[in-house]
Amino acid sequence: MSVRLEEIVSRFGGDLAGNGSLTVAGIAPLDEAGPDQISFLANAKYRAKLATTRAAAVILGPEAAADCPVAAIVTPQPYLYFARVAQWLHPEPRPSTGVHSSAVVESPVPASASVGANVHVGPGSIIGEGVVIEANCSIGAGCEIGADSWLHAGVTVYRGCRIGRRAIIHSGAVIGADGFGFAREQDGSWVKIPQSGGVIIGDDVEIGANTSIDRGALDDTVIEDGVKLDNQIQVAHNVRIGAHTAMAGCVGIAGSARIGKRCTVGGAAAILGHLTVADDVSISSCTLVTKSITQPGTYTGTIPFMEHAEWLKNFARLRHLDAMADKIRALEKRLAELEKKS
Amino acid sequence: MSVRLEEIVSRFGGDLAGNGSLTVAGIAPLDEAGPDQISFLANAKYRAKLATTRAAAVILGPEAAADCPVAAIVTPQPYLYFARVAQWLHPEPRPSTGVHSSAVVESPVPASASVGANVHVGPGSIIGEGVVIEANCSIGAGCEIGADSWLHAGVTVYRGCRIGRRAIIHSGAVIGADGFGFAREQDGSWVKIPQSGGVIIGDDVEIGANTSIDRGALDDTVIEDGVKLDNQIQVAHNVRIGAHTAMAGCVGIAGSARIGKRCTVGGAAAILGHLTVADDVSISSCTLVTKSITQPGTYTGTIPFMEHAEWLKNFARLRHLDAMADKIRALEKRLAELEKKS
Amino acid sequence: MSVRLEEIVSRFGGDLAGNGSLTVAGIAPLDEAGPDQISFLANAKYRAKLATTRAAAVILGPEAAADCPVAAIVTPQPYLYFARVAQWLHPEPRPSTGVHSSAVVESPVPASASVGANVHVGPGSIIGEGVVIEANCSIGAGCEIGADSWLHAGVTVYRGCRIGRRAIIHSGAVIGADGFGFAREQDGSWVKIPQSGGVIIGDDVEIGANTSIDRGALDDTVIEDGVKLDNQIQVAHNVRIGAHTAMAGCVGIAGSARIGKRCTVGGAAAILGHLTVADDVSISSCTLVTKSITQPGTYTGTIPFMEHAEWLKNFARLRHLDAMADKIRALEKRLAELEKKS
Repeated sequence: MSVRLEEIVSRFGGDLAGNGSLTVAGIAPLDEAGPDQISFLANAKYRAKLATTRAAAVILGPEAAADCPVAAIVTPQPYLYFARVAQWLHPEPRPSTGVHSSAVVESPVPASASVGANVHVGPGSIIGEGVVIEANCSIGAGCEIGADSWLHAGVTVYRGCRIGRRAIIHSGAVIGADGFGFAREQDGSWVKIPQSGGVIIGDDVEIGANTSIDRGALDDTVIEDGVKLDNQIQVAHNVRIGAHTAMAGCVGIAGSARIGKRCTVGGAAAILGHLTVADDVSISSCTLVTKSITQPGTYTGTIPFMEHAEWLKNFARLRHLDAMADKIRALEKRLAELEKKS
Repeated sequence: MSVRLEEIVSRFGGDLAGNGSLTVAGIAPLDEAGPDQISFLANAKYRAKLATTRAAAVILGPEAAADCPVAAIVTPQPYLYFARVAQWLHPEPRPSTGVHSSAVVESPVPASASVGANVHVGPGSIIGEGVVIEANCSIGAGCEIGADSWLHAGVTVYRGCRIGRRAIIHSGAVIGADGFGFAREQDGSWVKIPQSGGVIIGDDVEIGANTSIDRGALDDTVIEDGVKLDNQIQVAHNVRIGAHTAMAGCVGIAGSARIGKRCTVGGAAAILGHLTVADDVSISSCTLVTKSITQPGTYTGTIPFMEHAEWLKNFARLRHLDAMADKIRALEKRLAELEKKS
Repeated sequence: MSVRLEEIVSRFGGDLAGNGSLTVAGIAPLDEAGPDQISFLANAKYRAKLATTRAAAVILGPEAAADCPVAAIVTPQPYLYFARVAQWLHPEPRPSTGVHSSAVVESPVPASASVGANVHVGPGSIIGEGVVIEANCSIGAGCEIGADSWLHAGVTVYRGCRIGRRAIIHSGAVIGADGFGFAREQDGSWVKIPQSGGVIIGDDVEIGANTSIDRGALDDTVIEDGVKLDNQIQVAHNVRIGAHTAMAGCVGIAGSARIGKRCTVGGAAAILGHLTVADDVSISSCTLVTKSITQPGTYTGTIPFMEHAEWLKNFARLRHLDAMADKIRALEKRLAELEKKS
């Protein structure tokens, strides 16, 4: 797909500096783009690469426009602009519509949808217009998959789960498995608590590869509109994740936690159950959240890594912090005595 | 399914206070239950909700019975009782028996079992009575799936693994992949050690979505009766997990670790290899177990999270704990000198 | 498969002590091996078990040869030798060649390859000689699977990914899902950045169960030759992992990190994005790498676990390390004053 710069500007806005009839056929980083590609500068630290870029044009902010040796599209938010141009120039190849003959589909599928090889869709499910369900997916009975949602190969959706419009769900994701709920017998064995709630996923949600979202115990697990979940994430039963919250890979959210809107959660962070995280909270990678967070802000709890020998010396002290504090208090007292005398 | 309170009590015990001919058709939390539902009070902190519940009846302990404005089933263990009633009132819908025509099954399947669409079962496997194998599961050759076990869609069991009776295995779980075993060449490259052991799983085990249990190297990996594993757990080769131990999501267990019976392991905890954890040990979330634990009890090793700026100040100190301890010692010495003089 | 000791030595080298015409049919640990098995001693701590072994022969180092009560194969690297013998004696049973009638294969498959039940292979892919693709795998369009690679049941490879020769990829692994890339609108919502790069995997790579390797955003994600990844690992977009690096289970690598050659990464470690780790670095389990590592060595950042009550006392102090450091400084100053006076 080849487009003129003036077509880009007419579609997405921004100010064009240079020859609008130049054509570009793709997008690439500043130092890799060739003369048939457009590039972008969204981070000041790469500004020096402008001088030598071979790109046909660069998307950049007004502060960098004067330095651009080639055509430019000037916009206050070059990264967002890049995202939109990239979506236009690099659309994901779409499988042809229709239901593959090897698929076992027990619910109606609109003609605009695509159901791949060896898919199973149980009875009583509602598949929206334009939905893509790739090979080897399993959709249980009584599910709802909203219009234009795309399930990559090997996604599993348990019975009765509802997914909104324009979802993107990556391979290996499991939606609606049983939450982890048991009552304990006096002998230590466990009695399963049936997980009879469901999962409700809003519009414009993306769910990464091998991520699991459990169904609720009595109520539902809820993922609101615009949530973005990376790979290998665990979302336990009855969790609610607020709109437009984004979580990086390997995060774990325990049961009944309520995460606010527009939060960001760094990779491998963990959030304990039955607590609340306010809107607009940012949690750092590998941080364990053990109590509710009521104020927006950034929260962190990690330890620095160091060369192993140095770590051994320092971390032996961690077992004795309380004793260290006691020693300091004793020193303070003895010193005060001496000061009084002198 | 609608049942009378007196039927519940006659089946599960407990003392009925109120009209035994009232019928209930489901179970719900105190503040959501309607007049055709039963609820439960298992945690004193929700006791205030009793007063306004619209439930037909409440399962609760003797200490709360006097406060109950509606019919009650009084039992010393209301949470356990709730679990049993919920299992009865909310049974999971069971797929019809028989082998789906799209399944490729190379082993005998009893008439009481259900094998879903696009399943593959290799040769020489033994499928028990009443087993459910949902769509897109893959069972290798020479496996054994005990009676009444239920494999949800997309479970993989490698050749030669044995699963006991009444197992529940959730989608994306992988049983019996190769353990991670390599010998290292002098140039740093790796030579694979064949993983010729298997996986043996006892009765009444539940395994969560996207959890992996590796086969043993020479011996087997063993999961004893009644173990409950949540989602996204990694169990390495030759691990043994004792009966009725429960692990929350994202836990990792390294090779040859032996975990005792009736342990609980919090989410995202990690246990290093070749060590032993005693029976009845509880490990907190996100705790790294680096050496054997020989006594029952609760063990923890996590750091508090804090507002990021506060964390920056405090955690810079972590790199200098050893120096802080030295300073305290030096102060103690100098102070002792002064005290001697004065 | 039964072989004579002299056949082993003639194939793999080493010095034979004892009767070369003894036959062995398998390999087992020292304390479990029977008279038709060979065993090995690779770790001095098990040396005492030599005396009572019932094995036909033992593979061991020259320092232990004198203690061996049965036949021995003496080699400077007994663990490597064991690995090679085990590969020979315990080859993985290989499925028969050919494409199963239930597979949906839209690309040519050589006669030496094996494609299992309900597999899907998209158009334009290149499947090498001797490749094994087990049941329920999904391979997208335009992929390349190198000769003698083995994909276990339920592996997903997205369109356009390239896998080298002799790869072993375990069930549930997902290769080539979209990286996690979004630009943020001012209202906090996210605009997807198309992930138009691919994944390039070298020769002799092993990838564990339920591990995810994302495709690159503009460039490719690259896994070099001989890399070994355990289960449940997350490799984000544009990461590069150097040759012969090995990572244990549950590791997470954030976007654009560059990991050197011959590194080892312990279980559940995490590496932040856009940083570089030198060759020959060893990172301990559960360590969070927050900045580049430029020198070979071992790096650690974990905290000790302890009995919960003790932990409570010590870890309360962690929030006040900065205040403790201030107190020490104040004490030093006051003490210096006193010392001046006295």
